[in-house]
Amino acid sequence: MDRARRPGPTVRTRVREYGEGTERSREDRLATEEPLEIRMTWPGSPPQRVWVTMRTPGHDFELAAGFCCHEGMAAPSSIHGIAYCTDVDLTPEQELNVVTVTLTEATDIGHRHTGLSVGSSACGVCGKDSVTAVLDTVRLAGSTTTWAGPLPSPDVVRRLPALLREGQAVFGRTGGVHAAGLFTAEGRCLVVREDVGRHNAVDKVTGARVLAGESPAEACLVVSGRAGFELVQKAVAAGVGALVAVGAPSSLAVSLAEEAGLAVYGFTREDRTVRYA
Amino acid sequence: MDRARRPGPTVRTRVREYGEGTERSREDRLATEEPLEIRMTWPGSPPQRVWVTMRTPGHDFELAAGFCCHEGMAAPSSIHGIAYCTDVDLTPEQELNVVTVTLTEATDIGHRHTGLSVGSSACGVCGKDSVTAVLDTVRLAGSTTTWAGPLPSPDVVRRLPALLREGQAVFGRTGGVHAAGLFTAEGRCLVVREDVGRHNAVDKVTGARVLAGESPAEACLVVSGRAGFELVQKAVAAGVGALVAVGAPSSLAVSLAEEAGLAVYGFTREDRTVRYA
Repeated sequence: MDRARRPGPTVRTRVREYGEGTERSREDRLATEEPLEIRMTWPGSPPQRVWVTMRTPGHDFELAAGFCCHEGMAAPSSIHGIAYCTDVDLTPEQELNVVTVTLTEATDIGHRHTGLSVGSSACGVCGKDSVTAVLDTVRLAGSTTTWAGPLPSPDVVRRLPALLREGQAVFGRTGGVHAAGLFTAEGRCLVVREDVGRHNAVDKVTGARVLAGESPAEACLVVSGRAGFELVQKAVAAGVGALVAVGAPSSLAVSLAEEAGLAVYGFTREDRTVRYA
Repeated sequence: MDRARRPGPTVRTRVREYGEGTERSREDRLATEEPLEIRMTWPGSPPQRVWVTMRTPGHDFELAAGFCCHEGMAAPSSIHGIAYCTDVDLTPEQELNVVTVTLTEATDIGHRHTGLSVGSSACGVCGKDSVTAVLDTVRLAGSTTTWAGPLPSPDVVRRLPALLREGQAVFGRTGGVHAAGLFTAEGRCLVVREDVGRHNAVDKVTGARVLAGESPAEACLVVSGRAGFELVQKAVAAGVGALVAVGAPSSLAVSLAEEAGLAVYGFTREDRTVRYA
């Protein structure tokens, strides 16, 4: 793979900035956003598309691994390999936007590749039913352990967003990406990943741990944005002990977290945090 | 429809707030998040599921109308009616999470209900190809006009986020929702909608205009978050003249906007705004 062809996490652009009575032209950086198609294959089965997401290029294999694990489509131990696609129908540029996850054994992807991680299965679309269905999916995956160790104290929780920002590389340049990070109960950073999509950032964090042969089930997942239902779903699937968000949680997120025994903190900053579940 | 059964935009919850050496229990409000399934039907065709999204209940018909128009699945004039589903298989609670859009004529929904508004069609997943495919889709829809009137001056642009916040009802209570609004070139607010999902808020704005018999093609669409590719896509489909974001745009968002002739402003606040396309 020619790394020179690989798109970077940011691209340069010219912009015009307008202030109060002022106007100037300058250079700026944008967070790169490109589609990534994830395909899955296993012995005896040709590659099938399971997902297309708009993501910031970089850590693509981690994104694919984390997504498949979060969705219950792959156990970490069943991932045989991940590679960029070399389909003859693809241009060189397209090849960098398609990854194939090869499993050691067959999996069921039938009802999940519909663009929503939940609800599009047979659960109907009642919120409470969705919570049940998600927990069933997560438990079916049966591949992750759940964190049973100590949880961070509120004092540690309040420091986590600042520690997350320290681990962010792209944000300082563009202001346009979300970050997610995995931390110990004492606030030690294990991994931080960034993406224009906040779900992608969480997928990358779990994928980074899985591909490194480590468990994603740790004390604390920290996210730079809000804590919606799908983020809680990923946190539960990864088996973390607490989800710490800089923004607000939603009603269904709190319901799912309570059902699953996940601690959720929102509106977290240096001087304050709010525990919801 | 018994309105008493309808979930509100916020729900109450008990939380624990931790400060520096302080701790207290209090009541808080969460933005409601529930799944919404959108089905489409037309003469001779049974209802088909085209999308499931996690949304804040309220303005559900607008959300459905706006989504279908933005995706090029329905021209505003082809929408015959929208109703909550009364499928015998659904519980009363589920009925409020399923809406059916009835069209006057057949449409092509075949390749679009995959959870991504773009890229999952035959375009491949090269960023540039996606841009072309999106523009083709939008032009195929052929149902919206594009704003050809005056655009807001940078001075008006800088005031728009504050005017958007004035129109927000839920945000003040929860801090957990995104907002989108349609404004004239002079900064007059035409409609503001809120949702836990920023794409949903934009769908609701366009749907509100369409269902009121007004054109969604106005001078200015304002969003409370970032301007990603899919938001630009919706802005182009709606035919607005300028997209004003409080947050950052992405690389592909700017590419699409330039190609489509849409003005994009990012990092917009009282004293500054940055024009990207």
